[in-house]
Amino acid sequence: MNISVEELRKKILKTLKKNFSAKESATIADYLIWAEASGIKTQGIVKMAGTEPLQNIKPKNEIKVEKDTKLSQLINAGACPAPLVSSIAADVAIKKAKEFGFGIVGVHNVFSSNGAQAFYAEKMAKESLIGIVCSRSPSSTTAFDSIDPLFGTNPIGFGFPTSKEPIIFDSATSAMTWYGLVLAKMHGETIPDDMAIDKNGNLTTDPSEAMSGALLPFDKSYKGSGFGMVVEILAGPLVGAAWVDNQSFKEEWGSLFMAIDPGLLVDVEKFKANCSDLVQKIKSSRKKPGVNEIRLPGERALAMRKQAEKSGMVDVDETILKTLGYIK
Amino acid sequence: MNISVEELRKKILKTLKKNFSAKESATIADYLIWAEASGIKTQGIVKMAGTEPLQNIKPKNEIKVEKDTKLSQLINAGACPAPLVSSIAADVAIKKAKEFGFGIVGVHNVFSSNGAQAFYAEKMAKESLIGIVCSRSPSSTTAFDSIDPLFGTNPIGFGFPTSKEPIIFDSATSAMTWYGLVLAKMHGETIPDDMAIDKNGNLTTDPSEAMSGALLPFDKSYKGSGFGMVVEILAGPLVGAAWVDNQSFKEEWGSLFMAIDPGLLVDVEKFKANCSDLVQKIKSSRKKPGVNEIRLPGERALAMRKQAEKSGMVDVDETILKTLGYIK
Repeated sequence: MNISVEELRKKILKTLKKNFSAKESATIADYLIWAEASGIKTQGIVKMAGTEPLQNIKPKNEIKVEKDTKLSQLINAGACPAPLVSSIAADVAIKKAKEFGFGIVGVHNVFSSNGAQAFYAEKMAKESLIGIVCSRSPSSTTAFDSIDPLFGTNPIGFGFPTSKEPIIFDSATSAMTWYGLVLAKMHGETIPDDMAIDKNGNLTTDPSEAMSGALLPFDKSYKGSGFGMVVEILAGPLVGAAWVDNQSFKEEWGSLFMAIDPGLLVDVEKFKANCSDLVQKIKSSRKKPGVNEIRLPGERALAMRKQAEKSGMVDVDETILKTLGYIK
Repeated sequence: MNISVEELRKKILKTLKKNFSAKESATIADYLIWAEASGIKTQGIVKMAGTEPLQNIKPKNEIKVEKDTKLSQLINAGACPAPLVSSIAADVAIKKAKEFGFGIVGVHNVFSSNGAQAFYAEKMAKESLIGIVCSRSPSSTTAFDSIDPLFGTNPIGFGFPTSKEPIIFDSATSAMTWYGLVLAKMHGETIPDDMAIDKNGNLTTDPSEAMSGALLPFDKSYKGSGFGMVVEILAGPLVGAAWVDNQSFKEEWGSLFMAIDPGLLVDVEKFKANCSDLVQKIKSSRKKPGVNEIRLPGERALAMRKQAEKSGMVDVDETILKTLGYIK
């Protein structure tokens, strides 16, 4: 249902007040509203309505910088929610890349998922940097010839500056996101028949069975597993977070933020112009029958955000609004 | 057919002599034999038997460093074959990463494809670095809702050090490699029915039709296109090479080499031990019915190389050996 963006923001801030300062709440709300306005429903306010609602996470410690070099920073998030520490981490990566050409920031001891990588990749691209952002989440997805959940849903996002709007691509490396399962279960819906297996390794359309079983890789095959593994390492052991099935180890989530200045290799303005040309060439190519317009990743989300900005209204899942007590 | 590795090396060196120095020939031969011994037949000596045989490429200019900073180097390859300049580029990235934590090297004006990214990613991983390597090749693969070839087959490879053998994953972002089409055509074989389209956008099993049409992305869908686009930018405009359909622009190929020291974030030995643990956890997980052993990417290739080393023999395509005049 449609709800006023400002009204939604007020309600979210009120909910977050319990465990977060006004500044922290504003950072988290910014992210959640960005995701909702982008139509990325599996990474938006559903995070306040799942099995571990974001607003109930009480950070155990202050966010602490454990290592800092010219090019890098390792952050212990003190078990705070990802949308809070991730904005900080992305900003640090940006600052380092602007000064030295490259910035890499790892986050561990973070609670709950990073959400849409696009949000952070876009921040970087808007600063004329190339952004690579990924997160490791608890084991939920099979890999290679296994029927056990090994890797997380492990999203990865990329941002590239152009002369106009940035090019943003982000993708879970699993066939569905975890919150896709949460949403399906919440609505009593089934999931497509080639996305997940039950705990015995048989394909299932039941989101609950999938939750106790495993999701498949995004291509349902070997290459998707490979990309999942890459994220598992980059946002797991590389940042001091967990990997594969060590769920007993508390630091299940982890995130990596890399920002690269294209100026390390080529003229930045020329790079941006060439990326714009790339967009134009893709969009003007011959289309599949029945396709009106070739859309790049992130293009639909951007159009939706612009629309929300213009109208001041955003479409939000009614069940979640009810769960949160935002409507009756 | 089985042929002696040393005999094959001698024959390759003799063929390369025409256009390359002894040292250059040795570098190229090292790569080709590595690919053959790894069983990566689409990236091995087939490159000497395609439409643009590697040995016929006469470099136009010396390899020239166009830009050099602490962290980066941009190389104009002088139209030399990729296996020659790529080894140099990977070594520069390694050197910079060892000194400063990060090294990024771009290559443009390179002739023919980079081949197996794994070769270079492995070099980096063996130096206790994380390697990310990718190449842009001439437009051959559809993207998003297009039926035109937009991106190259655009392989990307990753290497991670462990306490034992490195973890190596590399993959074309197209459903097949270009040399997979070359090999199928050479043998008069058809290709699977969901890999490529003809020039009108209809699925085809004819490798010639696919060559004048387009390959599909590796997942035959949107996400695979996204990864293809990422490589198109990283190894295209970012390194001063071409992008999308500008085939009239001569610099069609491009490569990017990134090496990252895990020590920027965490203890390197601990990182390597944790990556070893990750391998062990994947391999000991429950298997799909009918699967004897879970194999990680690169594992089979490594076993084959070890076997070739032990026996001194390598299995090479007979048709190619005949084409090259190596056998009658």
